[in-house]
Formats: sequence, structure tokens, C-alpha cells
Amino acid sequence: MSELALWNAAQLVTLAGPPRARTGREMRELAIVPDGAMLVRDGRIQAVGRRADIEPLLSPAAQIVDAGGRIVLPGFVDAHTHPVFAGTRADEFEQRAEGATYAEIAARGGGIRSTVRRTREAGEDELLGLARRYREWFLRGGTTTIEAKSGYGLSLEAEAKILRVIRRLGNEGRLRYVPTFLGAHEIPDEYRGRLDAYVDLVVEEMLPRIAEEHLAEFCDVFCEPTVFPVEKARVILRAAQRLGMGIRLHADQFTPDQGACLAAELGAATADHLEWTGTAGLAALVAANVQPVLLPASVYNLGSPHYPAARPMIDLGLAVVLATDFNPGSSPTASMPMVLSLAATQMKMTPAESITAATINAAYSLRRGAEIGSLEPGKLADFTIHDCGDYRELPYFFGREPASAVYVAGVCIYSGNV
Amino acid sequence: MSELALWNAAQLVTLAGPPRARTGREMRELAIVPDGAMLVRDGRIQAVGRRADIEPLLSPAAQIVDAGGRIVLPGFVDAHTHPVFAGTRADEFEQRAEGATYAEIAARGGGIRSTVRRTREAGEDELLGLARRYREWFLRGGTTTIEAKSGYGLSLEAEAKILRVIRRLGNEGRLRYVPTFLGAHEIPDEYRGRLDAYVDLVVEEMLPRIAEEHLAEFCDVFCEPTVFPVEKARVILRAAQRLGMGIRLHADQFTPDQGACLAAELGAATADHLEWTGTAGLAALVAANVQPVLLPASVYNLGSPHYPAARPMIDLGLAVVLATDFNPGSSPTASMPMVLSLAATQMKMTPAESITAATINAAYSLRRGAEIGSLEPGKLADFTIHDCGDYRELPYFFGREPASAVYVAGVCIYSGNV
Repeated sequence: MSELALWNAAQLVTLAGPPRARTGREMRELAIVPDGAMLVRDGRIQAVGRRADIEPLLSPAAQIVDAGGRIVLPGFVDAHTHPVFAGTRADEFEQRAEGATYAEIAARGGGIRSTVRRTREAGEDELLGLARRYREWFLRGGTTTIEAKSGYGLSLEAEAKILRVIRRLGNEGRLRYVPTFLGAHEIPDEYRGRLDAYVDLVVEEMLPRIAEEHLAEFCDVFCEPTVFPVEKARVILRAAQRLGMGIRLHADQFTPDQGACLAAELGAATADHLEWTGTAGLAALVAANVQPVLLPASVYNLGSPHYPAARPMIDLGLAVVLATDFNPGSSPTASMPMVLSLAATQMKMTPAESITAATINAAYSLRRGAEIGSLEPGKLADFTIHDCGDYRELPYFFGREPASAVYVAGVCIYSGNV
Repeated sequence: MSELALWNAAQLVTLAGPPRARTGREMRELAIVPDGAMLVRDGRIQAVGRRADIEPLLSPAAQIVDAGGRIVLPGFVDAHTHPVFAGTRADEFEQRAEGATYAEIAARGGGIRSTVRRTREAGEDELLGLARRYREWFLRGGTTTIEAKSGYGLSLEAEAKILRVIRRLGNEGRLRYVPTFLGAHEIPDEYRGRLDAYVDLVVEEMLPRIAEEHLAEFCDVFCEPTVFPVEKARVILRAAQRLGMGIRLHADQFTPDQGACLAAELGAATADHLEWTGTAGLAALVAANVQPVLLPASVYNLGSPHYPAARPMIDLGLAVVLATDFNPGSSPTASMPMVLSLAATQMKMTPAESITAATINAAYSLRRGAEIGSLEPGKLADFTIHDCGDYRELPYFFGREPASAVYVAGVCIYSGNV
């Protein structure tokens, strides 16, 4: 048996509460234990309380972790990322600063398709090496679980290669990965003008093989009239559901309501982006109990002022999730603290709401609510000590990596800022 | 003699060039040495070139620094910060997320005045301890010199206390500090409604004492109609000039052109903020050769969409500077990489322009252009190894602290991200 006791946490931010995602005013309830302590056995939380409650339970061999008056939170759960790809797109970033639009860059062969070309050429081990670098960035931000999408392969072989890399990353045991198949991220060059044929490929060849090899838990589609319009997205997502996969959608990033309504129709776990969702789309999400996954870092990085309507979503009772959307085009950040800053300053979410959205609500959106996302007895001991004395400093001091130490299943995986 | 050789820099970004701040297209010329190397003796750069040029010059005792295929830049020069204060304002940050305006918070006694109350109460050693924590954040962002303002004291005693803390920080020899007296940052509570009396105090008591004790090189004033209007700011700044101090202004943060025109009239080194500067103000700055110091992090953090007009400023030939504006109210970030990201995504400055603005142009704005801001023989060896292979990745990957190692006068002060 391994045993660990943590104490001297200025705030132990537990997010303890009902066994479901939080909505409305509940999103402001962090269930903080001041001067908190926690007992961990064999990677799971045994008890949470004050040091005086924990100390009598300890065995002599227990490892002691002194939080030093810092705050302790559940590891962030980042519910929307694209973490496996070759090459950066720093050149396109420069072109955008020089005035080129995203559409102009795509017309020159840039955008997602340029990453697809490079990712197809890269070997599995090379992709693994690149993704390990980014994995450390997630950890440095205090994140312990990420949803990880494929989508830069767009062929059976290349999509499976990416998903195998994600599996290997997960097996390495630092960061946790929840794999999502995103074969319908874009139409590959060789299928330009043949959308139906590509949808057939996804449905008839890719999905069965991905399911058979258990390479993904979820299926996602970039649902947008000019990419995968609703009727095509529906075909793909229904096929995934028949194979037992959960579904998530890139919805309403550029066009109102169609994606949100499809997510509601299909009972998706999440509808992601929602920058242009209006009243009809929001009503559909509420009726179907779909969780919105908001991605303000991509809005920021594209220089758009059009952030999703977080406040109406919370007021309507939606169990909002925040995520980085880490990817080499629209959102090259792996930092959940950066996302919390954007949520507060650009979307008027309170620090407490944004922490709820980045932990327990994100965990439920990934079917992991019983295991991670809060610090409660029985759950996995995934937690981060952050170098500050008040949880509100996480979104307040921005542009830094505040994690002092990151624990996954009770094991210290990263130690940094002290 | 101490000797250090650095090599294997994927890009040695030297910013070598004419001995003056860069304007217009010059701001895109970074003078990069690919696969670069550098020789440092007794804290100063001796030679810059390829490894084959440097290696024959080495003595046997030289320390070797292998940049490992990473990029090397001059340390960032952050030309506008407020780094000495007590308390955070995370509570006000939360109130703003909940919908309160900056003006409402100030009316309740919040804002700068709340930081003044706490900073007055704090002892000099306590302030030093707090400021040391923030100093490490500047270093982690790759910054090696900051301009440091007083301004949370607003009495002779408290302003001098802050400036003594800045002097002690500088003497500790990690980060370099350039001190600026900002006694006219706000009107203190005890002088409410007695602006003339407070201006008299600044001019007749504070400034002479600050000058006599050599506590500041520059004088700054928050020039704004409702705080220190032009006629009062002029009185203070002229008095500072008579005492031999350089001058900088908080100009046009909320009101057009008055601050910029005053900066031009007085021949200030810089006019800072400039969010509302219009055609007349820009023309005045050009005519008087005043350097704009742009502070996009405070615009972002206040949730305003109104960024300063960087592109017209560059096109008009102004030697633009970028800085963090680090302070506990409007801009709680010490990260120059974050500022570069904001410059690219929100102000359409290219990565090269923003690096010029954050190094050599900033150095000239602080009268340090002959000593720091570029990697050229004769200059101080203040440089940072950043964990990336292309300088454009510095603004591209955002929300991280990319510095692998930071050197001040040839000595490794911080080593981190590897």
C-alpha cells in the first residue's frame, strides 16, 4: 500500500457536491476547505478535511506533502484538444499578423490541410516525440486529463496512427488521455469535390475499424455548412452511436444554430465552440441537456471579438465546460489558467464558475465524473498545487504557469514553480 | 577574467543595427544568425557569429553553453511596470467578472487607492519580499531589465520607501531595474478635492528629495483630465526636468490626444498607453520623436476591445515599444511573451516588429540603448535561451513561460523550461 498525506493547503478547493455536472449558481460553489488536508491511498483519495482529522489516520510510512500555504485544486480536465500533429503553423500566424485572413491562407493550401500533409508524412514515433513535448505544457498548466482528438490524418491509416499515438501517450502514465475520433475534421485534398465519397469512407471503413480496435471513446465532426453540413454530420455521428461511441460536435463556430440543434437532436455529450449560437440553438441544448464546451482561446488567437455567450448559457442552466482547443492553427495554447483568464475578462465568468467548468463539469462531459474532476473520497488523486494563496489568483495573474506540483493518481508527475 | 561561449542556437536573434531605436520597416530586421554562437568575457559580448568563428577565440577555462538547437534572444526590456506593492486585487478582478465597472469599484474605495492603503502599511522588507516573488516571474518570461515605477505611496515617505525597495532589488543583481518616480499616479485620500496642494507637495517636497537621493532616473505622471490634467502634469514634469530627470507619461488611456500632445511639447522619452490617441496626437509624437509605449495586456485584462493603433504608429515612423504594465489592478502579468501574443493577435504587429519593440526599442526608451537590447560586441551579455526553434513561436504558442535559461551579464540567473 502506498500512502500520501497532503496538508497546509491555504485553500483545498474540493468541488465536492452532487454526482453530476453543476449548473447555474452551483457553478460558484467550490466547497473549499481552508487550511485543508487530504489522505491518499494507492492513488485514490481516502479522506479530506483538516490536518487534525487526517493525521491520526496515517501509517508511519506515509509520504508527507506540505502544500506550504499554497492552494490545491483537482487537476484541470481539458475537454477539447488536438494534441498530435507534425509541424507548427507559426508561418501562418505571421501571415495573419500581416493581414491575411484565415480563408486566404486556406485557399493557398494552408490551414488544417497543411498540418494534415505533414502529419501524414510523419512516422508514429516521430509524432509521439512531438506530442510528448506538448504533454509537458499541459502538465505545467496544472492539467491532468485531456480529451485528445485525431483529425490531422483524414485517411484510415493516418487517423489510426494518430489514435495509436494517443493510446501510447496515455499508457505512459503522466497525463491522462480520452481519445476522440475526428476523421471528419476537414475534407482531405484527394476527396475535394467528393464529399459523399469521403463520408462513405469515414462511415464504412474508418469508424468500424476505430471501434474494433477500441481506439476512440468519442466521435466528433466539424459541423459547418461549408465543411460537413448537418445532413452529413448526422450520418457520421449516428454511425458512431451505433458502434457504441459517445459523440461531440464542433458546432456553430462560424454559422448559427445548426450544429447546436444537431447536437441536441442526437443527444450528444457536448456541443463545442458555439460562438454563433443564438436563442434557438441554446433552447435546443437546454432541452436535450447537452454540455457546451467553450473555447475562448481560439477566439482570442484568431483576433475575433466574438466570444460565445457564456453568461446566458449559465443563466439558462447549461453545465458549461471550458477547454483550450489546443491545436497548431487557431489555438496554440495548452494552458487552462490562460483559458480561465479569458473566461473572466472576455466572457464575464467568475473565477469560481470557470474553475467548475474546467474540472468537474469537464469530467462529466467525458464520462469521467465518478473518477476525476473533484477531490472527494473514492476518486483518483489527481491534483495540482498552485503557487498562490487564493483560487481567484489563477485567472487574475495571467500569462504564467502557476503549477508548483502536479500529482496523477497520487504520484508527483511534475514539480515546477516554487 | 570569466569567459563564456554559447553555440548551437537555431537562431541567434541579435537585433544588431544602427545605434538608435528602429522605425518602420527596420522593425522587421532582426539580424538573425542561423546556427549562431557568441563569446562573452567578463559579462560583455566579445564576438557574435558561427561556432567556427568563436571556437578559436576561446581560452581553455571558458564555460560552454550549448543552446541545444533552441533560439537565443536579447533579454526582454520591459519599459513600463509597477512592480512594488502590497496585496493583490483579485477580489476586484472577481467583482469585474460579476459585472462591476472599474469606476464603480473605485467609487467604493477600490482601485489604485486600495493598493496605496496596503502599500503604505507595509514595511520596506515586506515589500521587498513581495517584489522578489514578482521578479522571478519577469525572469521566467525571459525579461532581464524592467522600468519600475513607484506610485502606490503618494506621500514623500511612502514613495521613497518604494524607490528604496526598487534600488535594493536592483542591487541584488538578478533582474535590472530602471527606477521611475510616479508620485502623481493618483490623488491620495487625504488630498481629495485639494489637487493644487498635492501637486505642490509633489513638486516642492517629493521631487527634490527623490532627486537628491538619486532614487529615480525618470518622472512619470498619470495625465488624464479627471486625475492630473494637462496643466498640472506639465508643472510636475517640468520640475522633474529641471532636476535632470527624464520624463515619461501615462497618456490618452481614456481621453484623446491631450497626453500625447503634452509629451511632445515637453520632449518626453515616451508616451505610454495611447489607447485613445487620434491623428493630432500621433502627428505631435512624430514631430517630437517621442516613443510610444503600448500596453495591450491592460486593455485585454480590462476586457476592452480598444487597443492602441500600433499599425498607424509604425507606418508613421514611430519607434514603438511594448511593455507589460505589470500592476495589481489593470494588468497582473509580468510576461513579455504574453504581450507579444497580444501584439500579434489584437494589434496586427508581426512577430519581428513586436520583438524589436520589446528589446532594442525599449532599451533606447530607457536611455540604455548602448548597453542592452541587442546582442552586439561591447554590450552587456543579457540574453535568454527560449524553448523553441523559431522566434515566431514566441508569440504563437501563448500562455506559457518559454524561457529555458536567462543570463544577466553572462551569468545564468534562471534555468527552467527544458
